[in-house]
Amino acid sequence: MSASSIEAAAASGVRIPPQSGTSFVLHRGDVLRIVDPCGEQVADLYAFALEDHACALSSGRSLDYAGKLFLSVGDRLYANDSSVLFTIVADTVGRHDFTLTPCSQEMFERLYGVTEHHPSCFENLVTALRGHGVRPEQIGTTFNVFMHVAFDESGRIDVRCPLSRAGDSVELRAERDLLCGLTACSAENSNNGTLKPIDFEILRAG
Amino acid sequence: MSASSIEAAAASGVRIPPQSGTSFVLHRGDVLRIVDPCGEQVADLYAFALEDHACALSSGRSLDYAGKLFLSVGDRLYANDSSVLFTIVADTVGRHDFTLTPCSQEMFERLYGVTEHHPSCFENLVTALRGHGVRPEQIGTTFNVFMHVAFDESGRIDVRCPLSRAGDSVELRAERDLLCGLTACSAENSNNGTLKPIDFEILRAG
Repeated sequence: MSASSIEAAAASGVRIPPQSGTSFVLHRGDVLRIVDPCGEQVADLYAFALEDHACALSSGRSLDYAGKLFLSVGDRLYANDSSVLFTIVADTVGRHDFTLTPCSQEMFERLYGVTEHHPSCFENLVTALRGHGVRPEQIGTTFNVFMHVAFDESGRIDVRCPLSRAGDSVELRAERDLLCGLTACSAENSNNGTLKPIDFEILRAG
Repeated sequence: MSASSIEAAAASGVRIPPQSGTSFVLHRGDVLRIVDPCGEQVADLYAFALEDHACALSSGRSLDYAGKLFLSVGDRLYANDSSVLFTIVADTVGRHDFTLTPCSQEMFERLYGVTEHHPSCFENLVTALRGHGVRPEQIGTTFNVFMHVAFDESGRIDVRCPLSRAGDSVELRAERDLLCGLTACSAENSNNGTLKPIDFEILRAG
């Protein structure tokens, strides 16, 4: 994708620069459209009920209710109290991860031997959500949009190149008022070695 | 297994009656031995750092660091802050789940159409841990000992009969001081249709 077409893609929404994150509020009925402007780039999403942060996105509940690991159009993302936070209403990729925690400084140290500071989705979510009163321990397993994780029958986890191409997107409808955190993922290994931006826009209800 | 042999198995430890739960403290170096006295029975385990409940068991971190879905001897269970809570030091079964949340009233309603109160691991953990100051929303995805969940390549989740037979066990060494909750699982579908007790003992360090 050329630089100019990336600029055009970003014009209608908000660009999250590489290895960074942001936070925003969705009201019930709003649709969050997450776009991979360059291709092969992961975006980590976490969310809380706006008025009650004890109600937070839950991978375990969502996978249990869906009866599958890979969520796409028509599937719902649930909170720890079993309320519905999102419904996936569009998805041009169809492969996302909901089993792994956001990348963190400790992950880069443990898995890749990093010894210096490394930007991470966890740190970026903590920073983006801190001003809303969210504590680090409240940020659980993220919905890792475009992240391509495969599992074989033995359970071995294989992090692969995202299937998303430039312009691919996923749309999630908010089923209640939500505080969201969203990142352009910082992990080289999850993004085919290059760290790119993520775009998003909010299609307001009504 | 005869009733008398079940009694004998329980004599050396503590019996958790069917569809109930308990809590206890482990000190660093203690080994928690969880026994399935009758076979085909799941036990849900959750844990917090004893002195800091913000540090809690994390499925997502543990699976990421292990690089696999199914943990057994030598594998570690991590907290959300990437500290090590447990090391699995013995395991006569080798198949446990770490992707699904503990069964809950809402799960029984959504997945099985239950309309009355149904005992659940979530409620039993909430009850067992409440006196220690743990709030319901702090209880995340449990390590589901003996739970047999299979995934095919498409990601479809299949809850099967546990592979554990009467007397099978798993042993976890505490790597720091821990507050633990443990249940005898309440979900008919996870336990081959019959709800049985779980035994455990704590082998104290030093």
